[in-house]
Amino acid sequence: MKKSNVSKEALALHKKLGGKIRIMPASPVRNKADLSLVYTPGVATVSNFVAKNPKRAREYTMKGRMVAVISDGSAVLGLGNIGPLGALPVMEGKCALFKTFAGVDAVPIVLDTQNPEEIIETIIRIAPAFGGINLEDIAAPKCFDIERRVVEALDIPVMHDDQHGTAIVVLAGLLNALTVVGKKLASARIVISGAGAAGTAVAHLLKKAGARNIIVLDSKGIIDSKRREAHKKELARFTNPEHKHGGLREALKGADALIGVSGPGLVGANDIILMSPKAVVFAMANPIPEIMPDEAKLGGAVVVGTGRSDFPNQINNSLAFPGVFRGALDNRVRKITDGMKLRAARAIAALVSSPTANKIIPDMFDKRVARAVAKVVC
Amino acid sequence: MKKSNVSKEALALHKKLGGKIRIMPASPVRNKADLSLVYTPGVATVSNFVAKNPKRAREYTMKGRMVAVISDGSAVLGLGNIGPLGALPVMEGKCALFKTFAGVDAVPIVLDTQNPEEIIETIIRIAPAFGGINLEDIAAPKCFDIERRVVEALDIPVMHDDQHGTAIVVLAGLLNALTVVGKKLASARIVISGAGAAGTAVAHLLKKAGARNIIVLDSKGIIDSKRREAHKKELARFTNPEHKHGGLREALKGADALIGVSGPGLVGANDIILMSPKAVVFAMANPIPEIMPDEAKLGGAVVVGTGRSDFPNQINNSLAFPGVFRGALDNRVRKITDGMKLRAARAIAALVSSPTANKIIPDMFDKRVARAVAKVVC
Repeated sequence: MKKSNVSKEALALHKKLGGKIRIMPASPVRNKADLSLVYTPGVATVSNFVAKNPKRAREYTMKGRMVAVISDGSAVLGLGNIGPLGALPVMEGKCALFKTFAGVDAVPIVLDTQNPEEIIETIIRIAPAFGGINLEDIAAPKCFDIERRVVEALDIPVMHDDQHGTAIVVLAGLLNALTVVGKKLASARIVISGAGAAGTAVAHLLKKAGARNIIVLDSKGIIDSKRREAHKKELARFTNPEHKHGGLREALKGADALIGVSGPGLVGANDIILMSPKAVVFAMANPIPEIMPDEAKLGGAVVVGTGRSDFPNQINNSLAFPGVFRGALDNRVRKITDGMKLRAARAIAALVSSPTANKIIPDMFDKRVARAVAKVVC
Repeated sequence: MKKSNVSKEALALHKKLGGKIRIMPASPVRNKADLSLVYTPGVATVSNFVAKNPKRAREYTMKGRMVAVISDGSAVLGLGNIGPLGALPVMEGKCALFKTFAGVDAVPIVLDTQNPEEIIETIIRIAPAFGGINLEDIAAPKCFDIERRVVEALDIPVMHDDQHGTAIVVLAGLLNALTVVGKKLASARIVISGAGAAGTAVAHLLKKAGARNIIVLDSKGIIDSKRREAHKKELARFTNPEHKHGGLREALKGADALIGVSGPGLVGANDIILMSPKAVVFAMANPIPEIMPDEAKLGGAVVVGTGRSDFPNQINNSLAFPGVFRGALDNRVRKITDGMKLRAARAIAALVSSPTANKIIPDMFDKRVARAVAKVVC
């Protein structure tokens, strides 16, 4: 479908549906006997029981199965700060995917505040009914502090998907891409274009996975210790081991992989040509990638991935988040650890038994994916 | 079913279900074409459109159909302050009824705070995704201020169901009960036992409907202008026109109707006997009424209603709230007014064409009810 057609059809479908999720009773309420169990008087016994045994709420209430997908609309897709109502269609779509890919019940909550303190306290206050919190489309750098503090405050798993979902699928794809080109993660020179939520988390997870030569760039160029923001100072501590200076072209010289999590069309074939032979390029800006696959290949890239479904190697969060929360709910995980993220990435990568340049990552509709991820989140 | 059986069965059913509501995608996500419309890239067009045209969010997102059922767990059923997790099974049940009775999508939110200011600001912050707010099981007197201020702050309908849902069904039942006994609302002496959320709202709505002789009692007796709490001072302004003093027995002397919204077993046949001939008694404490129907009749009551499904005349909020929010969503109502509540009560009453002592109110499963209520909430 052409882009203009997709836009028109998407608008028409959304108007027809009037919201993309529905609430259904888990059990029919057909008569007074049903009512006496689902509602009064029977529910009083359940309420009393749960109030006295709060740890068992997961068994007797929606807390055992329900995830809140929460956004303040400050960094929605590539659209930027379009606010909570603008974010709502994305959150609804995400909830539809949660159910479709992993049977997870998820409900969108969009916030009428973009103040970090207010976001944190609001999430904590509405948390009791939920078994997990998926933070979504919250701008960097506030997303880091918000996630850290909500994780600390709650005893349910909390994950900012733009960070960790992205990091998991990028690592999964990169593991197989490097196999295809016969390189090793530990020795690969990896350039990450973008130091927002995604770029920062990707850098951290790649490092945990064993990568030792990572360069991260933001709009001002290669990140070094002179940066003021806390998360960039932190990045500077473990990245850029060769102490390079300058912009993307300097960074790309001799690089084995470029991970684009920045913006549309920032990279050209004449940049890719600077990379080492058999380069890997993930151009994940959505819907318009940093560089189109054809052009990347023109520059010499051998394996190219994007976030889009109309090219090979779609590196999409939907491979990670449904299974991560499925596993967290099933295994009563209280915190999503780096170990879980690494195992999830490896589990996703392992589903492609013989990676090739055009097949480094499983299809989003591959039913094994969520199951494989859920299994290792424990 | 015996009470102990209901308790056991309710616990077993809740454990089996693990939460009483499910989230379902409104449209299947079967393949990449579906995904491109429901999620990226198509959703970006919808997000942009809604961000630029926030008033049209009701057409394109869940805001047009979704109600939040919000509680702090401070006054749950007759169980008191059992907290948010204890409240959750009730809120889930309510959401199941919303869908069952009126096709309204509703999601439970239980709050980890009982501070009125925090409750108010939290509700306002999570409101963008919702087309209505059903406040539930929040203790008096804070419920009055919370409701008033949230109503003022938001442009979506907000209703504390313990107040107004109860008031609507009590008025509906009373209109028909008075017809049965050949009395008029304007001249009837009406005693309300209980000055919490329900009793206070019932008194206000009965007055709006034309009742002129109302007495309200709390645990200290007949409410008069010496009371300190704001909502009781307000009640004193328009109730107790004969300036009675004392307790329930003094109030009941010569009364035509008793509305019990207080607690189990507070009234005996020897109290009812003080009422005027052909008395009406609504004993709505749940699950154990203020007086059992048999005993009320022993005391001379002619029409008796309770909140229970195992006696005739079940006066239950479920007759009101689903239709109220159905109508509010369908007609884009921004505020639930007294006029709507009066019309809703009359619409419910009118569904019983020939009221009798054992049939003053429609059955909860009568499909005409929500439709009739929705029609007049406009």
